[in-house]
Amino acid sequence: MTNFEETKKQFILPEGVVYLDGNSLGPMPKNVSDKLANVLYDEWSTMLINGWNDAEWMFQPEYLGNKISRIIGAEENSVVVGETLSVRVYQALSSAIRDTKKRKIILTDSGNFPSDLYMAQGLLELLNDQFELRVCEPNEILKNLNEEIAILMLTDVDYRTGRRHDIAEINKNAKDNGIITIWDLAHSAGALNLKLKDWNVDYAIGCTYKFLNGGPGSPAFIYVNPKIIDMIKPSLMGWLGHKTPFDFSHKYIPGTGINRMKIGTPPVLANAALTASLQIWDTINMDDLRSKSIELSERLINGLKSSCPNLKLASPTVAQDRGSQVSFYFEHGYPAVQAIIDRGVIGDFRSPNIMRFGITPLYISEKDIDLAIDIISTVIQNSLWDKPKYKKRKFVT
Amino acid sequence: MTNFEETKKQFILPEGVVYLDGNSLGPMPKNVSDKLANVLYDEWSTMLINGWNDAEWMFQPEYLGNKISRIIGAEENSVVVGETLSVRVYQALSSAIRDTKKRKIILTDSGNFPSDLYMAQGLLELLNDQFELRVCEPNEILKNLNEEIAILMLTDVDYRTGRRHDIAEINKNAKDNGIITIWDLAHSAGALNLKLKDWNVDYAIGCTYKFLNGGPGSPAFIYVNPKIIDMIKPSLMGWLGHKTPFDFSHKYIPGTGINRMKIGTPPVLANAALTASLQIWDTINMDDLRSKSIELSERLINGLKSSCPNLKLASPTVAQDRGSQVSFYFEHGYPAVQAIIDRGVIGDFRSPNIMRFGITPLYISEKDIDLAIDIISTVIQNSLWDKPKYKKRKFVT
Repeated sequence: MTNFEETKKQFILPEGVVYLDGNSLGPMPKNVSDKLANVLYDEWSTMLINGWNDAEWMFQPEYLGNKISRIIGAEENSVVVGETLSVRVYQALSSAIRDTKKRKIILTDSGNFPSDLYMAQGLLELLNDQFELRVCEPNEILKNLNEEIAILMLTDVDYRTGRRHDIAEINKNAKDNGIITIWDLAHSAGALNLKLKDWNVDYAIGCTYKFLNGGPGSPAFIYVNPKIIDMIKPSLMGWLGHKTPFDFSHKYIPGTGINRMKIGTPPVLANAALTASLQIWDTINMDDLRSKSIELSERLINGLKSSCPNLKLASPTVAQDRGSQVSFYFEHGYPAVQAIIDRGVIGDFRSPNIMRFGITPLYISEKDIDLAIDIISTVIQNSLWDKPKYKKRKFVT
Repeated sequence: MTNFEETKKQFILPEGVVYLDGNSLGPMPKNVSDKLANVLYDEWSTMLINGWNDAEWMFQPEYLGNKISRIIGAEENSVVVGETLSVRVYQALSSAIRDTKKRKIILTDSGNFPSDLYMAQGLLELLNDQFELRVCEPNEILKNLNEEIAILMLTDVDYRTGRRHDIAEINKNAKDNGIITIWDLAHSAGALNLKLKDWNVDYAIGCTYKFLNGGPGSPAFIYVNPKIIDMIKPSLMGWLGHKTPFDFSHKYIPGTGINRMKIGTPPVLANAALTASLQIWDTINMDDLRSKSIELSERLINGLKSSCPNLKLASPTVAQDRGSQVSFYFEHGYPAVQAIIDRGVIGDFRSPNIMRFGITPLYISEKDIDLAIDIISTVIQNSLWDKPKYKKRKFVT
């Protein structure tokens, strides 16, 4: 049984704050600082160039990948880490598109994160619009799966409402139709009990700065199904993905297995912070995490249901249909979230009218949820957003 | 006049080591540690999600870009930082390729860094080999420039020999032939007195972990000529490059100017280390740097000429034709470099027979060069590589 009282002690959280925005940026694990000091003083400044070898910096992408593969229920040696999520989306899609034979449609839904759509648009424009990006509604995916579709590219959890796709069911239907599948796990890695191996997904990508707490802008990851990895041709052929990068030959030969998906030189400092944050995950049972997440989410929903009848649940009412966040529609959502933040409960706002609260059992307890219910209720019941004492936030990420 | 005695004090260098591998990985500036502690404790752990706004993390790509633009002689607001060099090569080439009209040849040379060629190969395969990657010899570029060539993609300094291309001359010839130019400055940013603005280069890319001392795997940069930036279409359309990323609209609209070349979420910790290391550059006059680099290089070459007649200079003999490194051909190069490293002079080896020494005036003095000459001479004159007491290095990066 995972001990969430212990995991909570491993994070630095400001006094008096209930942090319900870990679905956007995870807080800092206490061990990050020592790990970075270690890399700065025992590695970079003393080993200098030899750190690539002696401190095994060069193996960070697969070392971290294997830490993540356990969290997402994937096979050993099926994940590597590096670059940004946008680049990984492009990498997955541009690799998949080389195996589409005569099919010309890439299906996605309107719940996908905009950046995924942008990266697809850029790729398709580059390919002179030989392919069509078809955007359907999230509840119409199954009926749009047919033998015209080349690639299905989805984010399983909607970043606004937390609506969750059933990857197992959708992926099976897609594979039955001969469709290549790409899943963006940005809002589910470290939040749901994913079982990539069982689900026979082709590609998955995700970020590590949300539920995995790797730090602001920490590197992304990519998963490729071991059954196909040796047949796929990466289109982002970086030197780290070469079979023998240090031969400096002029011809690209893809590395063995998932190694071919490595691209550029590993970001050693960022990877060090991620190494520290992923240590905490070694102790987490993903079933326990999911149960706890549902328990805390229900507690928040039920607590606000009676005290704030004017908040309309934007997330699905059935727990299994949600990711690890709870969102509400509220017409004064923007100023209300600011007023709530001012009182120590950090959530965020998504246009046009969504108040969003991330549920992260590693450091959020029942007591935190009860405090959040109190503060949110106080703000909503008393229209406290009309008394502006908050400062305007330019960004909501 | 730049005070190089002062800049040397700003780095941590192990006692008794002469570090002539800063062209591969720069050493650690002393201020990196405080800057990282500041980001961890005053920003990430306390501001949490608000760091994007309150600590201006979101503006790191252009803030750092402007620091670099001075170093490479470019215009203000013409450079952004992020992702890896391999990705930036792809970004430049895939953007340029959309403006090639009917021309179908991408010209490069055999002195280019292999990863640049790999990234080009990946892109061209994706485009079903509509384009040809033509690889000529470095001394035959000018005669290969003609109206068939769509794009000229070169690295100005050869990573093995240090042979330097005259960007001004080649670029002018290329532009006179209507060719789009892309320069990889990996081995010249922070090493040469570059004048991108004067030279009318179209695209440039580079890394920050070599001469710029940003730390292992620190982020890459891209420059686009302000005269063309508003006309080019980025093909890596990340959300950070969107005109209004926080509108989360479904359609990509490119950001203003160089902002459109941003891709994914900025790597905040890596960017913090780079911020610290670039502070040192604010004090550097690039003419002084180049003069000092040539002076130290000549000192090393002349010192070894008399003591080690069996070392054949692999670098150009004329100082102006070299980057900021000195390389020698030597048949026992691999074990000889190991024996030299064992004695405290860190250089490196490039297959099949090149011994390579980076010249970095920010922290290498005349005294260091004299010590290096002594040790290299001792090893070469006494065939000390035959007495193995060194440990094998798996990587040379």
